[in-house]
Amino acid sequence: MDATSVRAAASTALLTDRYELTMLQAALRSGAAHRSSVFEVFTRRLPSGRRYGVMAGTGRVLDAVENFRFTSPQLDWLADQGVVDEETLRFLADYRFRGDIHGYPEGEVYFPGSPLLTVEGTFAEAVILETVILSILNHDSAIAAAASRMTAAAGGRPVIEMGARRAHEHAAVSAARAAYVAGFAATSDLEAGFTHGIPTTGTAAHAFTLVHDSERDAFKAQIASMGKGTTLLVDTFDLREAVRTAVEVAGPDLGAVRIDSGDLTLLAHRVRRQLDDLGADRTRIIVTSDLDEYAIAALAAAPVDGYGVGTSLVTGSGHPTCAMVYKLVARAETDGGPLIPVAKRAAGGKTSIGGRKWAARRPDADGVAEAEVVGTGPVPDYLRPHLTQVPLVLGGETVGREPLSAARDRHVRARAALPLSATQLSKGDPVLPTELVLPAGPGR
Amino acid sequence: MDATSVRAAASTALLTDRYELTMLQAALRSGAAHRSSVFEVFTRRLPSGRRYGVMAGTGRVLDAVENFRFTSPQLDWLADQGVVDEETLRFLADYRFRGDIHGYPEGEVYFPGSPLLTVEGTFAEAVILETVILSILNHDSAIAAAASRMTAAAGGRPVIEMGARRAHEHAAVSAARAAYVAGFAATSDLEAGFTHGIPTTGTAAHAFTLVHDSERDAFKAQIASMGKGTTLLVDTFDLREAVRTAVEVAGPDLGAVRIDSGDLTLLAHRVRRQLDDLGADRTRIIVTSDLDEYAIAALAAAPVDGYGVGTSLVTGSGHPTCAMVYKLVARAETDGGPLIPVAKRAAGGKTSIGGRKWAARRPDADGVAEAEVVGTGPVPDYLRPHLTQVPLVLGGETVGREPLSAARDRHVRARAALPLSATQLSKGDPVLPTELVLPAGPGR
Repeated sequence: MDATSVRAAASTALLTDRYELTMLQAALRSGAAHRSSVFEVFTRRLPSGRRYGVMAGTGRVLDAVENFRFTSPQLDWLADQGVVDEETLRFLADYRFRGDIHGYPEGEVYFPGSPLLTVEGTFAEAVILETVILSILNHDSAIAAAASRMTAAAGGRPVIEMGARRAHEHAAVSAARAAYVAGFAATSDLEAGFTHGIPTTGTAAHAFTLVHDSERDAFKAQIASMGKGTTLLVDTFDLREAVRTAVEVAGPDLGAVRIDSGDLTLLAHRVRRQLDDLGADRTRIIVTSDLDEYAIAALAAAPVDGYGVGTSLVTGSGHPTCAMVYKLVARAETDGGPLIPVAKRAAGGKTSIGGRKWAARRPDADGVAEAEVVGTGPVPDYLRPHLTQVPLVLGGETVGREPLSAARDRHVRARAALPLSATQLSKGDPVLPTELVLPAGPGR
Repeated sequence: MDATSVRAAASTALLTDRYELTMLQAALRSGAAHRSSVFEVFTRRLPSGRRYGVMAGTGRVLDAVENFRFTSPQLDWLADQGVVDEETLRFLADYRFRGDIHGYPEGEVYFPGSPLLTVEGTFAEAVILETVILSILNHDSAIAAAASRMTAAAGGRPVIEMGARRAHEHAAVSAARAAYVAGFAATSDLEAGFTHGIPTTGTAAHAFTLVHDSERDAFKAQIASMGKGTTLLVDTFDLREAVRTAVEVAGPDLGAVRIDSGDLTLLAHRVRRQLDDLGADRTRIIVTSDLDEYAIAALAAAPVDGYGVGTSLVTGSGHPTCAMVYKLVARAETDGGPLIPVAKRAAGGKTSIGGRKWAARRPDADGVAEAEVVGTGPVPDYLRPHLTQVPLVLGGETVGREPLSAARDRHVRARAALPLSATQLSKGDPVLPTELVLPAGPGR
């Protein structure tokens, strides 16, 4: 797609914390920069009460790694600011990632300790990717996790993403993408359509009614322009009168009405009855108004045909970020030497487990997932068919790119393979336990 | 600045909800598109318990409005997708905003009902700016409000923004900017330095210690590269041993140590005593570890020299967005006719007050602010010196651009002019009441 390549061409190299470049400089001088290293992205916990996480942003990470190239103005600025020395600037000028990345494919679910992304290369080439990788995954996965709860709560009814105005203007575009991965039907955000090919949709705002001399004039204008299949906003003045006017103006083939305020359950029932009485029994009812997954679930028995979700989607429904971290888990002691597990050991709750991890989702006899198994040694044969990581970048070449529809399909399958309690909205523990399989031996 | 103009050149025109363009199309056909209109950005409430809001993003709005120009690939895509018709595409191809914008200058504080931004022009030219304006202001002001609480809690100690990894990669850059407006000293985010000229800073990660054969090797490498003024991370293995090693390696002139886990109050006292005993009495102590304004306040009596704040800053400390809306409040009935107040009237809690608003912050006899006065009629003479809006765009020309330092200074002054209880962290009502001054007459 044209738009994708235009956007993808922007350098991501400065979406980076300063300490990564200064660590690089110090490691170039000490020689540690060239040690083979393994970094892992994982999270120690899910947000309180959540049953599963949703991996999203993988495709954007692949773009960001490819475009992690320093431009001349960026290098000049780094020099001018004295961020790093000449040797480091030369390294950065030639930088491109030449290592391997494996990870959970987009749309997959995850649990505490799941090795979501494994970045292997020299310390130098891997350490400087920390911030941009975490930014993308922490944001997109937070949105996808909320979106997945909403689409589960909505059953088969379509959920539309309308949150752009409540999010940073570029985060909004990625939020629409993450929501689409987790089953949203469409977005209001045109840039998300342009950049990511997501279906776009929309209705009308109160301003459109108010700029006309009457609601009737506004409805007439909208139908003249958009056709009878359009969605009329009916809660600017008096809902009952608006519905009557809407059907008078459009006839019984009016596409839909939107209700954006008030007691939505009560109003949906009233409007449905009124529409049916007016012969508009195929006119759909769309509701929007600070909906979240709980409000969607509460409307399950109401005659509602679609949900528009804004604020709670783009803010991750109470959890706007994940707690994913990017940790060095193994490195060689000499160039080309064997990898040695490493881990922070100080007290304070932030310790982690050294060594490169594999992960598998073990099914029970009926094919329902029963555990997330994470290990550092050899993979037991019976788990091989259930490994969760896939190759994404090999020797610097991207091998894991896929259309968004693949991620979307994967999410449906992955969520369906979890125990049924996964989609309960009540607070609880992760729906799968994470089982650690560590090789016997000293050191941990 | 070079970087600013590079970035500013990107079109913002598709950071827009689809319904804005379809409303435009319908209004072009009905003729309402050409009616003089007034849109206002305001919020009905502050986040629960917050005492004041902080206006941020104004400068970015000015860039976004200037760059709201449709490119050929964007227009082709809109045509290809059938979003709007030929007439509307021609309008968009020629579009640039030619109206006026007044608003609260960046760094100013605000309250429920404050008219934060007033956009005046034809319905057509103003309606399509809704989403991008709200995206910017809702995000940046949410970050600035949290940042202001943190800098108030920190007293004179520097607070550093380190949250990029927990936010969308581009939202992070704007978050660093908003935090700087609200008094943060610096950011870890290099792009924020490159694009906005904000000071950047950094320390080192646990990975840097772990990639070396010993903590001592890592400290030596960092000091060899960065000098003794650097900040060493001392909580990878054993804190006490690390501090001893740090001073052995760097000598008593070591710049700072960073503690990133554990009971920060206790550890800061211990490390301070140890550093003093080692003669490193000028070595500073920086703490980072899921800090928010409450944790910062709790550390006020601890021997801490600076705070690094990540997650809670970029997520608005529990309130990642504001509830700002963009509402049509007045429009002419004929081209060039007088402006008529308009407002949504349906039940459901989302009603608003029609008419273009002015606002003033009324001081008491001692110069302390005592009310946010918002009105729609003539401005009483005694309030004229206290009006809060400034001109930002006049006849399509930007007149309100200013350096970030001006916004930063303004925030210090605006916060200092509030009653002292403004900076209490306990939950409470807005520190100023909003008083409405509406002209007598029928209708409300």
